[in-house]
Amino acid sequence: MSILLHGVLLSGEQKDIFIEGNRIQAISDRLERAADTMIAGQGKAAVPSFVNGHTHAAMTLLRGYADDMPLKEWLETKIWPVEAHMTEEDIYWGTKLACLEMIKSGTTFFNDMYWHWNGTARAVQEMGIRAAISAVFIDLGDAKKTREQIALNEALYAAREKFGTRVTFALGPHAIYTVSEEALRWCAAFARDKGLLIHVHLAETEEEVSRCLETHGVRPARYLEQIGFLGPQVIACHCCWLNEEDIAILKANDVRVVHNPTSNMKLAVGRVFPYRELHARGVITALGTDGCASNNNLDMLETAKLASLLQKFHTGDPVVMPAEEALEMLTAQGARAFGLESGCLEPGRWADIALVDLNTPTLTPNFHLASDLIYAATGSAIDTVICDGKILMQGRRVKGEEEIMAKAREAAFALVRRAAA
Amino acid sequence: MSILLHGVLLSGEQKDIFIEGNRIQAISDRLERAADTMIAGQGKAAVPSFVNGHTHAAMTLLRGYADDMPLKEWLETKIWPVEAHMTEEDIYWGTKLACLEMIKSGTTFFNDMYWHWNGTARAVQEMGIRAAISAVFIDLGDAKKTREQIALNEALYAAREKFGTRVTFALGPHAIYTVSEEALRWCAAFARDKGLLIHVHLAETEEEVSRCLETHGVRPARYLEQIGFLGPQVIACHCCWLNEEDIAILKANDVRVVHNPTSNMKLAVGRVFPYRELHARGVITALGTDGCASNNNLDMLETAKLASLLQKFHTGDPVVMPAEEALEMLTAQGARAFGLESGCLEPGRWADIALVDLNTPTLTPNFHLASDLIYAATGSAIDTVICDGKILMQGRRVKGEEEIMAKAREAAFALVRRAAA
Repeated sequence: MSILLHGVLLSGEQKDIFIEGNRIQAISDRLERAADTMIAGQGKAAVPSFVNGHTHAAMTLLRGYADDMPLKEWLETKIWPVEAHMTEEDIYWGTKLACLEMIKSGTTFFNDMYWHWNGTARAVQEMGIRAAISAVFIDLGDAKKTREQIALNEALYAAREKFGTRVTFALGPHAIYTVSEEALRWCAAFARDKGLLIHVHLAETEEEVSRCLETHGVRPARYLEQIGFLGPQVIACHCCWLNEEDIAILKANDVRVVHNPTSNMKLAVGRVFPYRELHARGVITALGTDGCASNNNLDMLETAKLASLLQKFHTGDPVVMPAEEALEMLTAQGARAFGLESGCLEPGRWADIALVDLNTPTLTPNFHLASDLIYAATGSAIDTVICDGKILMQGRRVKGEEEIMAKAREAAFALVRRAAA
Repeated sequence: MSILLHGVLLSGEQKDIFIEGNRIQAISDRLERAADTMIAGQGKAAVPSFVNGHTHAAMTLLRGYADDMPLKEWLETKIWPVEAHMTEEDIYWGTKLACLEMIKSGTTFFNDMYWHWNGTARAVQEMGIRAAISAVFIDLGDAKKTREQIALNEALYAAREKFGTRVTFALGPHAIYTVSEEALRWCAAFARDKGLLIHVHLAETEEEVSRCLETHGVRPARYLEQIGFLGPQVIACHCCWLNEEDIAILKANDVRVVHNPTSNMKLAVGRVFPYRELHARGVITALGTDGCASNNNLDMLETAKLASLLQKFHTGDPVVMPAEEALEMLTAQGARAFGLESGCLEPGRWADIALVDLNTPTLTPNFHLASDLIYAATGSAIDTVICDGKILMQGRRVKGEEEIMAKAREAAFALVRRAAA
């Protein structure tokens, strides 16, 4: 299978992009190649499709179910009771909806942590995008649960290949306050042994830091370093409550961090992600949406705008996180964080590409594509999405979208009814 | 002319809405009326179309032209030099583009302050939406300029009716640091005499407050009260740097305030709009986008999300500005602020209505329309827009949109070339 993108705007110049199999094969001013599919690029700009560094995809089912509540009450009376009733089929439809929403806003990779791993993996496989998927690993210090969780992760790892090459199995120790030291050590060892990513929440709230100091006598980053958990395979999400020493520890261990500005603001976590400090040290940083219960969408362009505005406002400096840097976090930096062979458009890379419709009011007049994408456009400006060399959206139409919305809606309302019964 | 909206979702129930002339004539479970136009409401929710409380519409021409710069350098080296070259024709096309963008995101009224009043008014008249339009009144204490500005505003006022009933002439004294006391007093008197709105920037930056204290010995709100400027006709925009006394003064004078969260964050104004305090006192508050150079779009749903998230994050309280309140600011509160006979859907009101496409991923599953609109959707979820009883958009198509984008693009690039020459 081959695709020719004919005359798309790439870094301000009209180019032809030839895709063969799942990779970009050539980029040039004019390519005279026979292709199975030709896409007219007139009025469209090509960018690497986006990376969503942290989410719980199937939480689309809980979008708008409960908002504007104190965190503890929200979790205990709304989110957790409903999650307890979720089935693998719910997760499957919730993730299909999430994939649909991500494709429609230009995202083709997401890093997930949620329940019923197989439901998520099946949805991702079918929808044509990529994901690193981890099961929520929580043992609360209960040795029996630790053993169960380890067995589950070993089984998922053993069977991981049945969902194809776009689905990556990852480990998902939830956080230092929900996972025992023994389990954290097991995750670290298993990840090193098998070459897996580890997806963890880190320093999201002040309470996490103060509890860690009480329990372990050190702050979270130091604690994780001491038990041999840290390394470039660790994807540390949130990282709001970091001090200078924490940042140095993350850098020294080449940990990758994911900032989730919308969720941090909506849940009022109380501290701004220390972007300038992390960026100055060269820590690889991606952006994420978090789950739809705390965002409530999966639009990476909106996320990037919020990230940039929050930094500018917080630091009092309108120059922090310029548009290009924010766009890099969605593309090249995101790809580096997760070891993806995408994130920039050049021969040899995976054909993971989004085409932006420049005939959109928010992209007019278009002096500067990065600025328009980050500050003006939303995901709805994306016209075409290609992942792994396959066209997933063209003219904003995704195959089966009506059915996915209908089934996810049905699953969500039935779930809430079951939880209330 | 009459329109029947058949079976739309209104506050969670299927309703028929009958529009005759420019007003909602009836709302009921089932209306058996012959209408000139019938719109099938299946899968759509009706909401009052939105109010954009503060913008400089034609700044769409400068979208993405310069960002990520220190404020002073940005204004002096980029924005002002280009603005100096703008013609009425530029303003016309820039405003057409702004109107197109607003229609496409559900907005049918905006409060504008910019150059070449006639260009803005002509665009608004043609595009079918409503606006309160003021000319930028700046005299910098120069008596000759004061006289010129007064003459200009008197002339615009005298000729205001030629642009029809949807265009409202307003006064636009820019700010206390750019307009003389004499001119401010003139604006106040002229507005009272003629029943006009006054559009002013107030307490946007700390420098404005400190300069006012130096010059007048009091803070901006007190200064304006002392010179008899304040009243319910005053639309005070930004209002970030208010203290308790300022808030009491604004309330006592029934001033209407407009919060522009995106612009405040992007320009790093250093202080969060004191929403809780103003809301507790019942000050009428609308939301605005500000101009596209400092936002960089005109999407009121994005603006409302940012407003709510910024309040939650800043106060540490996830309960502040819940979705319903944010939506009210775009609709009922916005209408109250500007004296519009719209803002809620009931018989007798202006037929200014937006239909939301519920078959959109971000509106799925749709447990709660206000939450989904504010936290999940962007303006791209709006399918149909009616203003003054006329259909301006249906199925996301606006008449002439391709030409508007092409002409505005052309005008913007030509303008920048002229400014650089």
